Amino acid sequence: MPLTQEAQAEIDAARASARPTLRAVSEGMEAQLYTAHPVLDHGFVRVIDYMGDDSAIVQAARVSYGAGTKHVSNDEGLIRYLMRHWHSTPFEMCEVKFHVKLPVFVARQWIRHRTANVNEYSARYSILDREFYIPEPGQLAAQSTVNNQGRGAVLEGAEAARVLEMLKGDAMRAYDHYEAMLSQDGQQGLARELARMNLPANVYTQWYWKTDLHNLFHFLRLRADAHAQYEIRVYAELMCKLVADWVPLAYAAFADYRMGGVSVSAKGVEVIRRRLAGEAVTQETSGMSKGEWREFVEVFG
Amino acid sequence: MPLTQEAQAEIDAARASARPTLRAVSEGMEAQLYTAHPVLDHGFVRVIDYMGDDSAIVQAARVSYGAGTKHVSNDEGLIRYLMRHWHSTPFEMCEVKFHVKLPVFVARQWIRHRTANVNEYSARYSILDREFYIPEPGQLAAQSTVNNQGRGAVLEGAEAARVLEMLKGDAMRAYDHYEAMLSQDGQQGLARELARMNLPANVYTQWYWKTDLHNLFHFLRLRADAHAQYEIRVYAELMCKLVADWVPLAYAAFADYRMGGVSVSAKGVEVIRRRLAGEAVTQETSGMSKGEWREFVEVFG
Amino acid sequence: MPLTQEAQAEIDAARASARPTLRAVSEGMEAQLYTAHPVLDHGFVRVIDYMGDDSAIVQAARVSYGAGTKHVSNDEGLIRYLMRHWHSTPFEMCEVKFHVKLPVFVARQWIRHRTANVNEYSARYSILDREFYIPEPGQLAAQSTVNNQGRGAVLEGAEAARVLEMLKGDAMRAYDHYEAMLSQDGQQGLARELARMNLPANVYTQWYWKTDLHNLFHFLRLRADAHAQYEIRVYAELMCKLVADWVPLAYAAFADYRMGGVSVSAKGVEVIRRRLAGEAVTQETSGMSKGEWREFVEVFG
Amino acid sequence: MPLTQEAQAEIDAARASARPTLRAVSEGMEAQLYTAHPVLDHGFVRVIDYMGDDSAIVQAARVSYGAGTKHVSNDEGLIRYLMRHWHSTPFEMCEVKFHVKLPVFVARQWIRHRTANVNEYSARYSILDREFYIPEPGQLAAQSTVNNQGRGAVLEGAEAARVLEMLKGDAMRAYDHYEAMLSQDGQQGLARELARMNLPANVYTQWYWKTDLHNLFHFLRLRADAHAQYEIRVYAELMCKLVADWVPLAYAAFADYRMGGVSVSAKGVEVIRRRLAGEAVTQETSGMSKGEWREFVEVFG
Repeated sequence: MPLTQEAQAEIDAARASARPTLRAVSEGMEAQLYTAHPVLDHGFVRVIDYMGDDSAIVQAARVSYGAGTKHVSNDEGLIRYLMRHWHSTPFEMCEVKFHVKLPVFVARQWIRHRTANVNEYSARYSILDREFYIPEPGQLAAQSTVNNQGRGAVLEGAEAARVLEMLKGDAMRAYDHYEAMLSQDGQQGLARELARMNLPANVYTQWYWKTDLHNLFHFLRLRADAHAQYEIRVYAELMCKLVADWVPLAYAAFADYRMGGVSVSAKGVEVIRRRLAGEAVTQETSGMSKGEWREFVEVFG
Repeated sequence: MPLTQEAQAEIDAARASARPTLRAVSEGMEAQLYTAHPVLDHGFVRVIDYMGDDSAIVQAARVSYGAGTKHVSNDEGLIRYLMRHWHSTPFEMCEVKFHVKLPVFVARQWIRHRTANVNEYSARYSILDREFYIPEPGQLAAQSTVNNQGRGAVLEGAEAARVLEMLKGDAMRAYDHYEAMLSQDGQQGLARELARMNLPANVYTQWYWKTDLHNLFHFLRLRADAHAQYEIRVYAELMCKLVADWVPLAYAAFADYRMGGVSVSAKGVEVIRRRLAGEAVTQETSGMSKGEWREFVEVFG
Repeated sequence: MPLTQEAQAEIDAARASARPTLRAVSEGMEAQLYTAHPVLDHGFVRVIDYMGDDSAIVQAARVSYGAGTKHVSNDEGLIRYLMRHWHSTPFEMCEVKFHVKLPVFVARQWIRHRTANVNEYSARYSILDREFYIPEPGQLAAQSTVNNQGRGAVLEGAEAARVLEMLKGDAMRAYDHYEAMLSQDGQQGLARELARMNLPANVYTQWYWKTDLHNLFHFLRLRADAHAQYEIRVYAELMCKLVADWVPLAYAAFADYRMGGVSVSAKGVEVIRRRLAGEAVTQETSGMSKGEWREFVEVFG
Repeated sequence: MPLTQEAQAEIDAARASARPTLRAVSEGMEAQLYTAHPVLDHGFVRVIDYMGDDSAIVQAARVSYGAGTKHVSNDEGLIRYLMRHWHSTPFEMCEVKFHVKLPVFVARQWIRHRTANVNEYSARYSILDREFYIPEPGQLAAQSTVNNQGRGAVLEGAEAARVLEMLKGDAMRAYDHYEAMLSQDGQQGLARELARMNLPANVYTQWYWKTDLHNLFHFLRLRADAHAQYEIRVYAELMCKLVADWVPLAYAAFADYRMGGVSVSAKGVEVIRRRLAGEAVTQETSGMSKGEWREFVEVFG
């Protein structure tokens, strides 16, 4: 269960007390504010605050392009135009702040996205909880035999059982020892900043994470992608839903041009033209390497 | 006059229609939203949106430091502690978006602050207005004779008159020619992206500028400083007032530790200690260069 | 002429004195170091320093992916793989520093690329030269009638002559007055930080500009693009050549996947599949707007 | 021992083969290139590449300030002036790339410095080595009783022995199980991206880390500070020595104005003035809180 009763009471209180504002309001996002959406076994994502909505994107674009935007008939068309032509700055005019609880190994991937503001729970100051990510049986996958960073078939039977036992046993023992080292009962107690080093990478941490919509889209494109590791992808997929509620027009454009879109190389454009002209192109005549050709064929057949 | 009647009507409408929100609300900032505060002869600053308030800073810090923050008695004490110890990330949890109208030469200084989101009016797409910054007589200063980048005494009499005449005359002629080149009346009309190159650096532009509170403080420390050029300083000074209304506790800490504070070098610390111990330190015995010593004495006597 | 004799002598001296280094060396870039390549009528680009080469990209990737990179047969294949899969961090391991002389209106576009280090000539401290960009007759284009930010046909005859006369005349007069205001001959002389505001946007400035290869590629993709304004595009095109000399493998991958590549939306992928399957898709049946369809057909016929 | 024989042979080979370059060369840094300097029990720092030297800082400043810098008599004076007046951009013109091996909990602090380029060894692609940070007895400190994030007295006797036994035992067991889960001997073998989650935060990782000198100074000021955690401080202290060899003038200015300098608040400036005027100021009459006063007295007595 991701939240204590106390935390839930705080959320309920916050959700009960609307106040008037003159700012842009997104009804879809108001409905999501503060609610903790569970992810994995102990994690969650919740929206703490947001700035702007679809109209704020349009408004910023119209400041930039002035009369130049007037011929675009409506907000949806303008937003799609901006997304298609990589006009990133109007999307930067929206901002969102999440509270996320996540395993440390997921946090380590996530933090690589540098254009964001972060306040993480500090294990130098405070003591971490006894919460560890243990995969569900369906996620206990073997190393892929074709992809150096992928997963293959799900482990079964005795092997799966052994893995789960190791993960659980090591996590519990590491936490028991963490507590034992910290204890000031009859001993001095090790410094928190040292004791934490005993905890494995599936321990949960949490942070406030704030970013603008353009950079959030970049994050989502990489992390909601099918090639992203499952444990971060589930966070990204949930955040996609929240963003769709927040800025539905921008999200739809993102889904079409980024998530569902592909980059085609100069060679790829040439191959498509030749095939459309009736030629039967093969890897050998495409000018592509085997890897490129395989990826190309996956998309276009 | 900085705003057209039409623009003022839009502002009035926006200010008339409050909507409920569950987000953090800063009453001080709500009172400022959308209002155009005049700066210089044609410029303005107005707040378009904001995220967070003093409590949001505290809340983010408590996520980071957990129980470690409980011994600080109150929000003010914690905010001052964070500012004093350069804990910048909690201040990054607040965000603000301004609409600014400003001369191009001011915009060129301003844009050097890279950690911000910007949508500027594009003179490739649209046509700039006939508005130029002409200094008031009291700001028509001579080159400083002691400071390579500063101003000296105010120009007077015939010299002042000549300068004003040149600035005004050149601006008007440049704009006349800008319009003449753009005109499609009996001719093709030069491309806007070319015609704009004829306009001098005192022409007004405008932009949406969005940044977080930590980076805004950094901007304000440099640009509201007495050594900043007057024409950008008046923007920064106005923004200081707006920030004081938005996050009064954070602003007070900023005013004490940053705006009013000074950096003392290792040599300076040693000199202060020696002087407190009764020694009469001179530039020669201070280990400082003449320039350092002059600046040191300006602060500590 | 972009460089004074004195400046050229300095460059010649720098180019004459090689010193031993243990660092990665790019022979192609050594041959370019310090040389001022002319751009526009008074501008130039010259490489001041660089860090890394193609091997440095590969080396960084192998640190990240360890044994996972061993199956890629060679450096070229690995670099293409990294580019194709948007692995940006290895490209960030190369850095380059340019000295650029450019008109202010070009500098204003350029500076929007925030992930770079910049030292610009300061007109608060120093006096700008009498150098202005005046387009060649072939670049004196009319406003496009189909594109709000584009150029149309070249101006001809009397209109072209009038435009050139205005641009030249206003620039010269503005500079005459700039000098007259600054003069301390029989008067105080206006502060440099004020006098500069009289200069039009085609005056030349200069800066040191330093960035990493990933962000440089991003800059080049946008600014060497056919839709970029001519006056910045010529800088980008020249820099493309310098980068090709510096990191030939990375540049080739960039040319194929970014410069020559296209982004195809989810709708576009579907249309290509349908057409490859023999269907005659029209704008009406494509699900695309007219604008999207026009751009799609421009690429794929 | 931080490096394998094979790695040492590679370093020796790289150090043996100097090549000519026209770039700025720092003799002090050339002497450091590639050498692995041991840190902690298995870590190291080594310089992989650098761009620029003290002269590059001066050169960039002279581009910016033009004739305005000529009155400063020499490079040292100009560099000190730039540092004293927070002119950060000339320092950004130098760049350095390190290869660092470090425990994961140190890496997690380090990565919070966002303005840097990073390629970290990926445990999704590759298998981590059996190397864990185990503190020396002298670093096995108790939690501070006065500072929520600090260390107190060193643990002794049985408690110290118990802690070391737990840290070592848990690390070895976690690694045994990591290997057992990965093994494809008679079983499928768990995906590497999952198995890694069993490893504690004292396991070593490594990365290439590249940043500019201004941001490096910011990192060093925070991490070589006495309040930084010992395990990251030893890295920062070593890097300080490398930087002193690279850019001795800039480092000396940094040491004086940043590392050895202090920030004094407006209240602090007032107190110093009053004390210099002979007044005996106490915490009560200072206007400072108890915490501020304690920190103030620590510096100035």
